[in-house]
Amino acid sequence: MRKGKVLLSVTGLNPRRWYELLSASREVVLEPDGPHDPSIEYAVIWKQPQGVLAGLPNLKALFSIGAGVDHILADPTVPDVPIVRVVADNLAQHMTEYVVWRVMDHHRFGLLYRTQQKRKIWHEPPQRTANEVTVGIMGFGALGRSAARALLSLGFRINGWSCTLRAMEGVTSFSGKDGLKPFLNATDILVVLLPLTPDTKGIIDHALLRQLRRDNALGGAVLINAGRGRLQKDDDIIRALEDGTLKEASLDVFEVEPLPKTSPLWGHPRVFVTPHAAATSDPNHLVGPMLEQMDAHERGEPLRDLVDRAAGY
Amino acid sequence: MRKGKVLLSVTGLNPRRWYELLSASREVVLEPDGPHDPSIEYAVIWKQPQGVLAGLPNLKALFSIGAGVDHILADPTVPDVPIVRVVADNLAQHMTEYVVWRVMDHHRFGLLYRTQQKRKIWHEPPQRTANEVTVGIMGFGALGRSAARALLSLGFRINGWSCTLRAMEGVTSFSGKDGLKPFLNATDILVVLLPLTPDTKGIIDHALLRQLRRDNALGGAVLINAGRGRLQKDDDIIRALEDGTLKEASLDVFEVEPLPKTSPLWGHPRVFVTPHAAATSDPNHLVGPMLEQMDAHERGEPLRDLVDRAAGY
Ligand SMILES: NC(=O)c1ccc[n+]([C@@H]2O[C@H](COP(=O)([O-])OP(=O)(O)OC[C@H]3O[C@@H](n4cnc5c(N)ncnc54)[C@H](OP(=O)(O)O)[C@@H]3O)[C@@H](O)[C@H]2O)c1
Ligand SMILES: NC(=O)c1ccc[n+]([C@@H]2O[C@H](COP(=O)([O-])OP(=O)(O)OC[C@H]3O[C@@H](n4cnc5c(N)ncnc54)[C@H](OP(=O)(O)O)[C@@H]3O)[C@@H](O)[C@H]2O)c1
Repeated sequence: MRKGKVLLSVTGLNPRRWYELLSASREVVLEPDGPHDPSIEYAVIWKQPQGVLAGLPNLKALFSIGAGVDHILADPTVPDVPIVRVVADNLAQHMTEYVVWRVMDHHRFGLLYRTQQKRKIWHEPPQRTANEVTVGIMGFGALGRSAARALLSLGFRINGWSCTLRAMEGVTSFSGKDGLKPFLNATDILVVLLPLTPDTKGIIDHALLRQLRRDNALGGAVLINAGRGRLQKDDDIIRALEDGTLKEASLDVFEVEPLPKTSPLWGHPRVFVTPHAAATSDPNHLVGPMLEQMDAHERGEPLRDLVDRAAGY
Repeated sequence: MRKGKVLLSVTGLNPRRWYELLSASREVVLEPDGPHDPSIEYAVIWKQPQGVLAGLPNLKALFSIGAGVDHILADPTVPDVPIVRVVADNLAQHMTEYVVWRVMDHHRFGLLYRTQQKRKIWHEPPQRTANEVTVGIMGFGALGRSAARALLSLGFRINGWSCTLRAMEGVTSFSGKDGLKPFLNATDILVVLLPLTPDTKGIIDHALLRQLRRDNALGGAVLINAGRGRLQKDDDIIRALEDGTLKEASLDVFEVEPLPKTSPLWGHPRVFVTPHAAATSDPNHLVGPMLEQMDAHERGEPLRDLVDRAAGY
C-alpha cells in the first residue's frame, strides 16, 4: 500500500534525527511544496511556523513531538484534523527521574548542605523520612501518575489533582476548582505537571502558592514546575520566595524560554534552574510509535492518544 | 520480673532523648558506679570511652546505637558478651533516601546545571535514562539491599558485592576478593555501604577507583561513600578526581570526623560533602526494639542481629 507523505515541521530543535528515522519508512519533507501541497498526509511538528499547516488539502493527522500540544494550538490556522500527542514510557521515565531528583534534593536539604560546605560547616539538621512529607502533583495525567508511582515506592505521601477525579492506590485524589484549595492546603512540595490551556494559564501565582503548607518537616513550601512556563508567573515566584511563602523552587520551564539573562530567577539563591530538560522527546524512542500509528491509520484503525481540542490537551 | 539496669555510654552525640526513652522502662545510668559495678546488665553505646565496659561482672549484652560496630570493637577491653547492632526499617529508609538522592544528582547532572546557572547558560546535555546506568553497591547487607530495591524500582541496573554471594532478583551479584574486579569493571556509580573491619579498612584507594567504568553515559565514574570514612583514603579520592579517574564524588564519611577545615575535600568543586548524616540513628524508632530485645532476653529468648566478632561486623 502507498504510504502517505510526512511533513516534519519544527523550530527550536534539531530535526536531523527525526528526519533520518521517519525517512527510513516514509517520504519526508521539511516544508510543503507551496501553500496547498496535496501530497502531505501527516505532519510531525514542534512549534511549527504559524500558518504552515493551514491550506494542506489532504492532511489526515498531526503528531506532536511533545506530550504538550499548546505549541500546536497556539496557531489558530491549524486545520481541524486529529492531533496525536506523545504518551511513551521513555518520556515518562525521564520525567519521573527529574521529579524524584528534585523532590529528593529539597527533602534532603541539598541547598543547605551546599551552603554549609562553602563555609566548611559540619552540621546536621533534623532529618525526617519521606513518609512525613506530602508531595502534591498538579496535573495527574500520564506523567503525573508515573512520578506518583515512583514517589510512593520511595515512601512519600502523595496528593493528586486533576480535572476529573483520578483514583490511584495510596494517593489522595482531588479534582476541579473545588478540590484545589484542600489539595494545596495538604501539600508540602508542589509538583506541576499540567498542560498549558486557557484554563491553566497563569494558575501558579502568588495567591495559589500562599495556600501550600508552610509549617512542615522541610521548613517551608517548595515548588517544582516541569509542566509549562506560562502556567506560572515568574514574578510571583520571586515574590513568594522573598516573603516566606516559598522556601525553595526547582524550575524547568519559564514564561519566556530560553530564560532571559535579565531574569532574577537565574541568580536567586533558592531557585534551581534547568533549561526545559526534564523530559526531552527522544526520537529514538518516539518515531517508531508514530510510524506505527500512521500505518495503522492507513489500514483503517483508529488513532490513539488524541487531543481534545475543546479542552486544549 | 526484675529488669536489668542499663548503662548508656555515648560520646559525640546527645544522650538526652535516648536516656528519656530507655528510662521509661528500665533504670538507666550514664556511668557505672565504680569499675566493677555489679548492677549493670545491658549497655547501650556509641563510641563509649575506652575501658568503661571492661570490669562489669554482670554485663549480659551490648547494644550498638549504630548499624556499624567499629566504634565498639576499636576498644580492645570490651568484654566478650553478645553485641546487638541496629537493623531497622527507619535506618534503612534514611540511608535509601540518601543513596537515591545522591545517585539521582549525579545521573541528572546536578553539578553541571548548578555551574551553568551561575553563568546563565541555557544548555541541555544528552540525558540517558536510568536503565543505561549501572550502580554498584559495595556491601550488600541490610542497607545495601534496601538501597538496591529502591534504585531497581527507579530503573537503574544494579551490581552487588558482598562477602558471601547475595542473590536478589534483577541484581547481578559478585562476592569476595575474586569478584571485586569484575564488579568494579561493570560499575558506573559506586555506592559504598561496607562496614569498617580489618579487611575493609582503606579499601577505597586509587587502585580500586581505577577499575571503575569511566566510558559511560555519565561521562565518568562516580563515588558515593556512606559506609565509614576509614574505608577510604581521602588523598586518593582527591588524586582520582584530579587525574580523571573519578568524575565526581558524594562523601558522607571521612577518615577524620568532623572533616578538618584544612581538608581539600571541603573546597573541591566536584565533591559533595554531608556531615555523616546519611542515616542517623533515631532514638524514637530504635529504643523500642532495644527494650524489646532486653525483655525477650530476660525471658530466655535469643538475641537477634548479633555481630560476628571474628568478622568484625
Ligand atoms: N518540562 C518538560 O520537559 C516536559 C516534557 C513533557 C511534558 N511536559 C508537560 O507535561 C504536561 C503533562 O503531560 P501528560 O502527558 O501527563 O498530560 P496528560 O496525560 O494529558 O495529563 C494532564 C493532566 O492535567 C490535568 N488537567 C488538565 N487541565 C486541568 C485543569 N484545568 N484543572 C485540573 N486538572 C487539569 C488532567 O486532568 P484529567 O486527568 O482529568 O484529564 C490530567 O490529569 C504536558 O502537557 C506538558 O506541558 C513537560
Ligand atoms: N553514614 C551513615 O550515616 C551510616 C549509617 C548507618 C550505617 N552506616 C554504615 O553502613 C554499614 C553497613 O550497614 P548494614 O546494616 O548494611 O551492615 P550489614 O547488614 O552487616 O552488611 C554489610 C555488608 O558488607 C559485606 N562485607 C563485609 N565485609 C566484607 C568484605 N571484607 N568483603 C566483601 N563484603 C563485605 C557483607 O557481606 P555478607 O552479606 O556476605 O556478610 C554485607 O553484605 C555499617 O557497617 C556502617 O558502617 C553508615
